[in-house]
Amino acid sequence: MSYELLLDHIKKTTALAQVSGLLSWDQETQMPPKGGTQRAEHMGAIEGVLHARRADPRIPEWISRIDQDGLDIAAKTNIAEAQKAFGTALKVPADLAEALAKHAAKAQGLWAKARAAQSFADFAPALREMVNLKRQEAAARQTGNSSLYDTLMDDYEPGMKTSEISGLLADLREGLVDLRARIADSGKVMPTLKGDFPADRQMALARALPEIFGYDWEAGRMDIAVHPFCSGNGGDVRLTTRVDASNPFDCIYSTIHETGHGVYEQNIPGADSLAPAHSYASMGVHESQSRMMENQIGRSRAFAEYLFPMFKAHFGDIGVETTDDFHRAVNNVRSSYIRTESDEVHYNLHIMMRFDLERALIEGDLEVDDLESAWNERFKADFGVTVDAPANGVLQDVHWSVGLFGYFPTYSLGNLYAGELFAKMQGDIKGLDDMISRGKLSEPLEWLHRNVHDHGRMKPPAQLIEDATGHKAGASALLEYLNAKFGDIYGV
Amino acid sequence: MSYELLLDHIKKTTALAQVSGLLSWDQETQMPPKGGTQRAEHMGAIEGVLHARRADPRIPEWISRIDQDGLDIAAKTNIAEAQKAFGTALKVPADLAEALAKHAAKAQGLWAKARAAQSFADFAPALREMVNLKRQEAAARQTGNSSLYDTLMDDYEPGMKTSEISGLLADLREGLVDLRARIADSGKVMPTLKGDFPADRQMALARALPEIFGYDWEAGRMDIAVHPFCSGNGGDVRLTTRVDASNPFDCIYSTIHETGHGVYEQNIPGADSLAPAHSYASMGVHESQSRMMENQIGRSRAFAEYLFPMFKAHFGDIGVETTDDFHRAVNNVRSSYIRTESDEVHYNLHIMMRFDLERALIEGDLEVDDLESAWNERFKADFGVTVDAPANGVLQDVHWSVGLFGYFPTYSLGNLYAGELFAKMQGDIKGLDDMISRGKLSEPLEWLHRNVHDHGRMKPPAQLIEDATGHKAGASALLEYLNAKFGDIYGV
Repeated sequence: MSYELLLDHIKKTTALAQVSGLLSWDQETQMPPKGGTQRAEHMGAIEGVLHARRADPRIPEWISRIDQDGLDIAAKTNIAEAQKAFGTALKVPADLAEALAKHAAKAQGLWAKARAAQSFADFAPALREMVNLKRQEAAARQTGNSSLYDTLMDDYEPGMKTSEISGLLADLREGLVDLRARIADSGKVMPTLKGDFPADRQMALARALPEIFGYDWEAGRMDIAVHPFCSGNGGDVRLTTRVDASNPFDCIYSTIHETGHGVYEQNIPGADSLAPAHSYASMGVHESQSRMMENQIGRSRAFAEYLFPMFKAHFGDIGVETTDDFHRAVNNVRSSYIRTESDEVHYNLHIMMRFDLERALIEGDLEVDDLESAWNERFKADFGVTVDAPANGVLQDVHWSVGLFGYFPTYSLGNLYAGELFAKMQGDIKGLDDMISRGKLSEPLEWLHRNVHDHGRMKPPAQLIEDATGHKAGASALLEYLNAKFGDIYGV
Repeated sequence: MSYELLLDHIKKTTALAQVSGLLSWDQETQMPPKGGTQRAEHMGAIEGVLHARRADPRIPEWISRIDQDGLDIAAKTNIAEAQKAFGTALKVPADLAEALAKHAAKAQGLWAKARAAQSFADFAPALREMVNLKRQEAAARQTGNSSLYDTLMDDYEPGMKTSEISGLLADLREGLVDLRARIADSGKVMPTLKGDFPADRQMALARALPEIFGYDWEAGRMDIAVHPFCSGNGGDVRLTTRVDASNPFDCIYSTIHETGHGVYEQNIPGADSLAPAHSYASMGVHESQSRMMENQIGRSRAFAEYLFPMFKAHFGDIGVETTDDFHRAVNNVRSSYIRTESDEVHYNLHIMMRFDLERALIEGDLEVDDLESAWNERFKADFGVTVDAPANGVLQDVHWSVGLFGYFPTYSLGNLYAGELFAKMQGDIKGLDDMISRGKLSEPLEWLHRNVHDHGRMKPPAQLIEDATGHKAGASALLEYLNAKFGDIYGV
């Protein structure tokens, strides 16, 4: 009986958290410009309710009366999640939780305006306040020998520590820098697309893709957003994408990427029950699903067989003649300003830079006033290019405006996980390349259901990946894949 | 200090109620088909929170400690609204409030499906449950000599009683039936449009209209819905419309109608403060704004001067040659199945029928199982036509599916109010027709701001109209307007 009361309580909390997610989706895709003031109040009010529900004193009472011996893993997970959320909520003052939610809604609008106006100074005061609030939150929640940054990262990757992710990223960095140097030394230049890519044609092609990757349109939709994202759960999982008339790959690969997220959310069994056990394992695992769809499958030579004819059908002459050249155009390696448009070799270098900068902001080693110059210096050092405009630099990502500190490293972790999972999948599924080349992905999807989606949140994320592959995740699987792929393309 | 605590509390409640409104908007315009199960949980969870906030025992404590003597009318209104909502919430069990919200979200989807399938039987069980829940709610709230129906109607038209609205409707009915008979006797047939009215052209014309009526696109948007409505407040007021390729007037006049609602919401001073004093006065007053825009202005001979050239520009040859003929086509009087497409002479006869049927359902004088035949009999009696399909009959309106009982009569009340307000406005503004014929509505809009919008909820609705016109509202102003207009058009 206590368990039923607890479960009913946390399901309603999940329902309200989903509402908050929908408000964010609406803000980024539908809301009119003058709706921002009220929306901040909406977000603050919902957060106040969520906070009070998570800190409800009946939660520990219910839990203390539950005999967990006879319960299944789902029930145990639900109890553990409620316990954890209770512990966190108890430490964070309600006023602070509400202030964070309201400030995020406001700061996001200010970020979008500052980005359009190419002015970091316009955004700096809002970011300063956000860093201040997140530092307060982390300080209130900090336990044991966790750093402020560890405390925040735990929201996105439960159990992950700065020391562990730093080690993984260092291994990855070494391999990537080496591969990049060999590619640069090759002197080879990849073909690029030339043609006419009107927005409506890009969207028509984009809309044809999610289904191939297992997305169910009856349980979702796709809209345009400044910064593509996926939002929702179970029977209502919404994708967003964007369109750049000069570069159709941005739209197409953003779409495939977000589809990977969406297919995960749509396929967690029991997701519409609102129980925490039936939600995603971590943001790192989430990102493994999106990146595998986008890269290991979407940017493969096999998928080029399928995608190239679609490009020709939608855009006519696109300036490349062969499937090999199309595949090379898809996998052009070069320094670029924008993380989300980056190739697989540079992508994680973008993340490492954000990881170091945001850690310094949260730990008090970098002031917001110095962030733009710190960004530009680091970018020059890592990418050999001078940032030409804030929208191509420090203002490119939405994350910090809405308080997502500790989130960026989960992107790289997701890449490592994707590398591990895909290597195992290749061994497990005979004729995988042939399936990919025909756009027939039901077997790899079933593999993902069985090894990832079906488990919801019922295993710790690192354990989930280890159980799927038979070993602890590291950088080597991803590096082997990248070395083989780009070694072949660039002949290095 | 007590007042500030109370105000902060009720503003957050308003914020959450606005969120609930946004969820409904999303459900009707954006949500994918499989999102319904979770959405019902979302609605139930929000309603549970709203109920608990409205019934918060601190509310009467705060109020008892406030010295109201020095407070302004806005503060007094806020206190009275909180007191009233507290009294209501205290009487309605939380379980019932949540069950109603969840059932509304489900029943709306079932209504839409049953409507598409032309099967009242598919919808009847959900409607039976809704009537059952609303009867329980009304019984729990009933006070003094109010009927169950009075109790529900009070949510939409505070203070209105069945006896009073029945008297107004009886006066109106007498005049309308007489006018209709004279029109029928005239034997005159109005011209009708003939042409090609593609959906995208209709929407292009529709999008050009709201601005003329004072709508601010920066604080709103327009989408397609099965049943047009307006949703939101202050800086975020969203319109919906629909498109019927065979009848462009449906789209155009639905748009103008909803714009009238939207302009009201956008122009209540302080609406974005979330304080109840700065919200609309009643649904009757709301409807007066939409109907005046749609009919007294939008279907006038003067506005035909403005709209006819727009029609020709958007659709080319539309089968009428003169402004007079266009005006006659706009004002074609004939029995039709659908309330929202009805002419001004028949419209209130549609309402009277719903008023009688829904009152019988709530008071226990009619069973849901007998509703379809009761509808069809009454329709035949009042309109002289046999209903040919449920979507043209008992399934045409969304209202009952979402529990809106007691709402329909506010439409007729709004028509009476529009008649009263427009008669006064005509006397007050010199050259009004000329302004309307040029689409220059700033003076009538200012008149509406001053006499209606500016007062928010700070006057009882009937008082608001009386203060604007100098006398109690009745049916005569509307009947005089209709007799003059259709007398002219039909020569009767």
